[in-house]
Amino acid sequence: MEPVRHLGLVGLGRMGAGMRERLRRAGLTVTGYDRNPDVSDVASLEDLVAALPETGRAVWVMVPAGAITQGVVDELAELLSPGDVVVDGGNSRYTDDQLHAAALAKRGIGYVDVGVSGGVWGLENGYALMAGGDAAQVEALLPVFDALRPEGPRDESFVHAGEVGAGHYAKMVHNGIEYGVMQAYAEGYELLEAKDIVKNVPGTLRAWSRGTVIRSWLLDLLVKALDEDPALAAIDDWVDDSGEGRWTVDEAIENAVPLPVITAALFARFASRQPDSPALKAVAALRQQFGGHAVKPAGS
Amino acid sequence: MEPVRHLGLVGLGRMGAGMRERLRRAGLTVTGYDRNPDVSDVASLEDLVAALPETGRAVWVMVPAGAITQGVVDELAELLSPGDVVVDGGNSRYTDDQLHAAALAKRGIGYVDVGVSGGVWGLENGYALMAGGDAAQVEALLPVFDALRPEGPRDESFVHAGEVGAGHYAKMVHNGIEYGVMQAYAEGYELLEAKDIVKNVPGTLRAWSRGTVIRSWLLDLLVKALDEDPALAAIDDWVDDSGEGRWTVDEAIENAVPLPVITAALFARFASRQPDSPALKAVAALRQQFGGHAVKPAGS
Amino acid sequence: MEPVRHLGLVGLGRMGAGMRERLRRAGLTVTGYDRNPDVSDVASLEDLVAALPETGRAVWVMVPAGAITQGVVDELAELLSPGDVVVDGGNSRYTDDQLHAAALAKRGIGYVDVGVSGGVWGLENGYALMAGGDAAQVEALLPVFDALRPEGPRDESFVHAGEVGAGHYAKMVHNGIEYGVMQAYAEGYELLEAKDIVKNVPGTLRAWSRGTVIRSWLLDLLVKALDEDPALAAIDDWVDDSGEGRWTVDEAIENAVPLPVITAALFARFASRQPDSPALKAVAALRQQFGGHAVKPAGS
Amino acid sequence: MEPVRHLGLVGLGRMGAGMRERLRRAGLTVTGYDRNPDVSDVASLEDLVAALPETGRAVWVMVPAGAITQGVVDELAELLSPGDVVVDGGNSRYTDDQLHAAALAKRGIGYVDVGVSGGVWGLENGYALMAGGDAAQVEALLPVFDALRPEGPRDESFVHAGEVGAGHYAKMVHNGIEYGVMQAYAEGYELLEAKDIVKNVPGTLRAWSRGTVIRSWLLDLLVKALDEDPALAAIDDWVDDSGEGRWTVDEAIENAVPLPVITAALFARFASRQPDSPALKAVAALRQQFGGHAVKPAGS
Repeated sequence: MEPVRHLGLVGLGRMGAGMRERLRRAGLTVTGYDRNPDVSDVASLEDLVAALPETGRAVWVMVPAGAITQGVVDELAELLSPGDVVVDGGNSRYTDDQLHAAALAKRGIGYVDVGVSGGVWGLENGYALMAGGDAAQVEALLPVFDALRPEGPRDESFVHAGEVGAGHYAKMVHNGIEYGVMQAYAEGYELLEAKDIVKNVPGTLRAWSRGTVIRSWLLDLLVKALDEDPALAAIDDWVDDSGEGRWTVDEAIENAVPLPVITAALFARFASRQPDSPALKAVAALRQQFGGHAVKPAGS
Repeated sequence: MEPVRHLGLVGLGRMGAGMRERLRRAGLTVTGYDRNPDVSDVASLEDLVAALPETGRAVWVMVPAGAITQGVVDELAELLSPGDVVVDGGNSRYTDDQLHAAALAKRGIGYVDVGVSGGVWGLENGYALMAGGDAAQVEALLPVFDALRPEGPRDESFVHAGEVGAGHYAKMVHNGIEYGVMQAYAEGYELLEAKDIVKNVPGTLRAWSRGTVIRSWLLDLLVKALDEDPALAAIDDWVDDSGEGRWTVDEAIENAVPLPVITAALFARFASRQPDSPALKAVAALRQQFGGHAVKPAGS
Repeated sequence: MEPVRHLGLVGLGRMGAGMRERLRRAGLTVTGYDRNPDVSDVASLEDLVAALPETGRAVWVMVPAGAITQGVVDELAELLSPGDVVVDGGNSRYTDDQLHAAALAKRGIGYVDVGVSGGVWGLENGYALMAGGDAAQVEALLPVFDALRPEGPRDESFVHAGEVGAGHYAKMVHNGIEYGVMQAYAEGYELLEAKDIVKNVPGTLRAWSRGTVIRSWLLDLLVKALDEDPALAAIDDWVDDSGEGRWTVDEAIENAVPLPVITAALFARFASRQPDSPALKAVAALRQQFGGHAVKPAGS
Repeated sequence: MEPVRHLGLVGLGRMGAGMRERLRRAGLTVTGYDRNPDVSDVASLEDLVAALPETGRAVWVMVPAGAITQGVVDELAELLSPGDVVVDGGNSRYTDDQLHAAALAKRGIGYVDVGVSGGVWGLENGYALMAGGDAAQVEALLPVFDALRPEGPRDESFVHAGEVGAGHYAKMVHNGIEYGVMQAYAEGYELLEAKDIVKNVPGTLRAWSRGTVIRSWLLDLLVKALDEDPALAAIDDWVDDSGEGRWTVDEAIENAVPLPVITAALFARFASRQPDSPALKAVAALRQQFGGHAVKPAGS
């Protein structure tokens, strides 16, 4: 497969649009398609495929994981030809990658899964990339990967992690780690806030920015958040989760790997979303039964 | 020391009054003192000591742990004589026992610490007892222990667990286990409640009462609580903790013993009492910073 | 459907053989089939079906969950007639129940899933039973359930928990709770063992048998185990898990229910089986990197 | 108090020697004392004090926390004069700071506690500093702090965190966070290692160095460790803990702050050091009792 210098890109939401922009800045040709005609370069997937080179086409899918990604992959299976390659850069579960790759392989179409990290900062800073799939296909996509990733040595922001699925698997683990790291900082923040002798909590976190063992980009962001709202007074303690954390724990269970920290971080999010906890109601009821301990009436 | 058949009992609250009653039913003589003259047998600690035998006196202290227990022990140190024994049946920390025993020993007064389990059910069912201290003193108190404990073999509800402090240490661990066991049932209850195909949660717990691996008195009490309020609708998810759980985790830290389950149960109680979680606010703030994820406004 | 008084029973291992015996003691007719001719009443599944009444047959499957149960259910689908019912009393995952019920329903055959607790003690003490499925089919099986379960009120050892799958779901949660409760006792045991002032650890656990808040059958078993081996010197700290604990945590993830205690108990088992922990090697490596802290050479 | 430009420094171990060097490079005068005459500038603490200015002396103590720090502080209390200040830059517990400050205050001597982060990299990169104490004393020490800390804005590597003790409290929390963050990376590493489709684990971690949400200095160090030993084959999974992690959890207990992640990380270290787990032996024994599950013989 020839090096890819003209990429088809499906999905031009926040992430996709940023990636198109970054690729073009690097001199690559990108034809983008989105259901929203205001941002789309072409009118349809058919038009997108038609705009690409006749052979060795590469189409990067950047749409929500699950049914929507499935639909796009199914359509591309019809539109593409043997020797082309589909890249899934969304947040698909790695088991979906294995199904997609198998289905496309029957038609001679290649498949590479890419985990992408960088969030809203990726356009400026670059996106870190973890790829899974066939070595030749990954090799052909290097011009694209090099354009997307941050400045610096390739191996500090890109890896061919392994077989099909390994890219999303690596990204899933990345996000699981992210849960744990964020909760660790958050717990430290809470303990500082709880202690009377500590008078300057935002300043303490800021002072960890340089020279400490725990300096990190997430710490920088927490300092920034405290700059904007020093007591986080405007923010509710309600934390969503977007799937990768759950999958990480599912994989821990599947592989009998103990993940106490990452799992505790996930459970803290679950608990944050409960208006009240049935489990703790049961504990309160038990204490009342055996010890006559007072319970609080519901809603108090 | 002669077997104790006439006991001084300081503190006639819920527990102390029940114990006096149970001891008297068993034929022992009890002189009780309480600050509340309506329930007290004598007008003062001096009168209590004066009412006891001239030698080999035993005074059982059953008052709140900490400063109040300390005050009673200090007073008894002045009033008692060499060869007498003080029994602390409250919920003192075992390190306090060691201080009390050392202070009393200087005056020739013995000291036995007793962890008492049974709660409000103890008067009828009997109290389980864990004692720490000198073997001869523990031996002399056996008539008291036998009257207080439930029917059945002595070693199924009484133990001389070890040195001074070991009785309260054993009770502390008992309570730590209690935290973990209660939380385990509570988590299972919550998962059943969350699952649509399960239509009869209280009935499921009741069906575990006989023949199952997890049958227990705490399960019986949870069944009873669900009888009274099938969805625990009247009870808030606010759970206090009374100290022994915290001490158990402190001991885990001190002795480098991993206690993940008991500690998780304690932390669940801490979290249950927070109107909102500073840590989860910080996590929400971080997600907004790096991913542009929406946060909920405070108080929502 | 008529009340079932003649049951077909497939699988005569430890559990199945005990159940056949208990059912016969109660006066029911049981025709049992096992691949092992030494214990089987008939030579084949065909013979088993032929031995049952002509209508309203009930066949209880008591074989390992997964492929083996699947195979038996598939065979029974061919052999049974509309109006018959298959009962799965093994440890199937509740999602398998839903598939089995749907497949059998196409042929007019009913399906009831039953979670069974009691272990090796069930023959003598009776088995606790949690059923899922259609009310009329569950009703028809009551003679069987009543014969299997312990003495006492029916609702203290039997429940119709809900729809198909609810019986195994309830049993799965039962086992999840079991993990947490066992770990709670085990942690308390370890802390007592670690403390120098506690001289009689087995005696302390035995003294919790009556009158305490934490008295339970599992505690009785731990006391029994310590009777047989007071320091558990002959037992390795290697703990298997048989699936239901993992499924419980999977369900917690699926339903966003925080289960910190049950999950910690599961992870403790995973860790118990690791010859060494890659995660802790990584932590040791990190401490060496930033702090110059010594590491131990591998295998030390 | 005048700005400090001549510092007395007690303790010239790895950290103290590095700090002396860094201070001197910045143009400050340092008189160092160590029990080891090979590295010491003076022969005794008396000589050290004599070498300092006549008023407004500042002596930075950089010796092991606990009894040794206590001894040095006690000696300095005798040698210094009103208006002087003692700085404790070691890893003292914040409650010790409060005792030290009170004792020195009786003699008119000031006290500032400073948490120092940076480890073996501090000499080159600079040390991050968290100070607790009186504002005027902290102000006078700014020349010292500015020389020690990394390049860049002062508030990104230095904070006056609060009252006496707040500096070490902040450092304690820093270290607690460090436990959680390290364990999060380590768990992710282990899960990657366990997954067959992932072929390049060290490369995956390296690819997280730039552009990812979880980029950090600790990640860089883990990449470096894997460079040196790609499977960590030479390192045992035995992880020590140096106190601050335990104190962090103690503070969580004291202040009723749930710290599930940091505590899980601490317990993982405890477990890493156990040749076998009494708790898991008990769980294995229980499973054998109720289910007839096989146990492994000890030592297997």
